[in-house]
Amino acid sequence: MKLYEDDDLFIEREPSEIPWVKIFTRTPYRELSDLPDALRAKLYRACDIVERQMIASFSPDKINIASFGNRLPRVHIHLMARFENDSFFPEPMWGQKQREGSLSLPDFQIFAASLAERLEEAFGSEPV
Amino acid sequence: MKLYEDDDLFIEREPSEIPWVKIFTRTPYRELSDLPDALRAKLYRACDIVERQMIASFSPDKINIASFGNRLPRVHIHLMARFENDSFFPEPMWGQKQREGSLSLPDFQIFAASLAERLEEAFGSEPV
Repeated sequence: MKLYEDDDLFIEREPSEIPWVKIFTRTPYRELSDLPDALRAKLYRACDIVERQMIASFSPDKINIASFGNRLPRVHIHLMARFENDSFFPEPMWGQKQREGSLSLPDFQIFAASLAERLEEAFGSEPV
Repeated sequence: MKLYEDDDLFIEREPSEIPWVKIFTRTPYRELSDLPDALRAKLYRACDIVERQMIASFSPDKINIASFGNRLPRVHIHLMARFENDSFFPEPMWGQKQREGSLSLPDFQIFAASLAERLEEAFGSEPV
């Protein structure tokens, strides 16, 4: 499910017990250093907006950010809101499971609506 | 071992079979969105310089980047040069071990010297 898209970026939800989104560039690139400077700056700005909205909506214990792409070498950035009682904390979400998570979080759809609003405010309909 | 430091950032090597460095802000912050804009921009620029030098020095199959800090909530960014025959590929370095890695890589110290040179060229001795 796409949470946001414009001519440069799109954002998808990763199905998970935690709030987790992935930001993609519409044009595929292998590494972050391959992006044109203006697009890289916009991608980082989108990360910042997602992080701030995750903090505002969910008050997580920590934000986690990752860019791997080892299976499919295409730049995309994971942003995850982490909680002390999620299934993997303090391990990364790719680490060893620590417990059965017991999260009771605010509605993801309300976060998603606020996030789309923030992104549209920031980027309008103008591409880089 | 510090690979680089100035008034804003310092960079350390993470002991590993792969080329792996961590970039810290000298002043500790909890989340990336807590950084002053100019310092966040400098941190991202340092990431870009590290990534480019890793690619130039090691020709990795993929660069991996991560910012977790769940145990100690202090912003720092991991940059890792990944190879198809490292012990964890295509899993993240925090994932399940896939094999006994068999890497034969160029000297890390030569990379470190080139990296320090690139960072000094980019940042001089001027703080943000």
